[in-house]
Amino acid sequence: MAAYELHYWPGLQGRGEFVRLALEEAGVAYRDVAKEGSEGEASVIVATGLDDPGMATPPFAPPFLRHGKRVIGQTAAILLYLGDRHGLAPKSETGRLWTHQLQLTIADAVSEAHDTHHPIASRLYYEDQKPEAKRRAEDFCRYRMPKFLGWFETVLDRNPKGRGHLVGARVTYAELSLFQLVSGLTYAFPKASRTALRKAPKVAALTKAVAARPRIAAYLASERRIPFNEYGIFRHYPELDP
Amino acid sequence: MAAYELHYWPGLQGRGEFVRLALEEAGVAYRDVAKEGSEGEASVIVATGLDDPGMATPPFAPPFLRHGKRVIGQTAAILLYLGDRHGLAPKSETGRLWTHQLQLTIADAVSEAHDTHHPIASRLYYEDQKPEAKRRAEDFCRYRMPKFLGWFETVLDRNPKGRGHLVGARVTYAELSLFQLVSGLTYAFPKASRTALRKAPKVAALTKAVAARPRIAAYLASERRIPFNEYGIFRHYPELDP
Repeated sequence: MAAYELHYWPGLQGRGEFVRLALEEAGVAYRDVAKEGSEGEASVIVATGLDDPGMATPPFAPPFLRHGKRVIGQTAAILLYLGDRHGLAPKSETGRLWTHQLQLTIADAVSEAHDTHHPIASRLYYEDQKPEAKRRAEDFCRYRMPKFLGWFETVLDRNPKGRGHLVGARVTYAELSLFQLVSGLTYAFPKASRTALRKAPKVAALTKAVAARPRIAAYLASERRIPFNEYGIFRHYPELDP
Repeated sequence: MAAYELHYWPGLQGRGEFVRLALEEAGVAYRDVAKEGSEGEASVIVATGLDDPGMATPPFAPPFLRHGKRVIGQTAAILLYLGDRHGLAPKSETGRLWTHQLQLTIADAVSEAHDTHHPIASRLYYEDQKPEAKRRAEDFCRYRMPKFLGWFETVLDRNPKGRGHLVGARVTYAELSLFQLVSGLTYAFPKASRTALRKAPKVAALTKAVAARPRIAAYLASERRIPFNEYGIFRHYPELDP
């Protein structure tokens, strides 16, 4: 079957990055369409994929993955698909569902992190919603971030099979995603995340362990890894992390 | 295996309702723990489920489903599980993933609908975030609701196999969930939803068709269906639908 094609917005990590990390850890070939040609051209390619009237299963939004005739949208659904194919999730139904449940909770945390700088409308600029962003970020840093990270700490505490793993004794896509979530929070909120991670030492250790995995380390050091910036989900606005 | 046990907050439809609709359409027995005893007691039962240190896979938040030894959190993951068991999703991998992708997009729309009245913090009252809510609801009604409903209309248009169905030629859990989303939007935003649904006639027709399915109709007419109210996700605040 043809190699994977990832379709996503150019110039930012965004939700596409969760898919990239899984593909990199799997060590499989993939086209990253956003990185071909100029940013403008890449945007057009993304848009064409969405607007193609011949596509019976059109994704609502990027990222989406093309694999042969398949077109799969929604980050968590893409990872469910890749997890089965590349040993990035357990084979048992219970293990698969638990891994997916972790991923869906990460997705919730990601949406909330995004909304710290866009609490009113994704369509508008951050500059158009700064007072609201300040209120939302304050609540997120004080209550929601510690709650999410605390839950992952509990999951690591209770995993009966694997020290330092979320699910069983092996890496899963949820673990790669937790790495990305924590990396993003650390970039966006260096102060608040330091406080929260002090109470979640196993989460902090897992994040380091994922970054040190050979394929992930090679990816992070490569030009393929787009740096965090203020176009993505995790944005560093110092006024939101006072 | 033991019957299903749904754990959710008492007194509101919330995200639990998506699970209830699937269980009702499947025609299976289930305990709805929130409806047993007083609301206070039910809350305690929910909390105990979450705080039980013996639970190796603790859900982050309700709803969660207990089925024998299994504990499954996250609405979309619960529906993935029930869909396989009760013919509420196709058996093919492609069909299962597409149904799940629809569900995940519904979940995104549900979160955005919730945030119209809680754009700053779920922890605070609506009364503490009214100006922000007004801005967010305006954007939601004007841009996001039509975009989501328009996408589902496109999906209905392009389904090669079934007139009036989202996936193939049979009902799926995603269809039950779309019914719930549209019902909720109609309750919360009677004016804005009327405008949006006028441009999504197939979505409107599907909503009616789901409501008329024998088991769903019986459920909606029963005391088991909690009425929409201002504790749930879909709240009718007239000032947000001017």
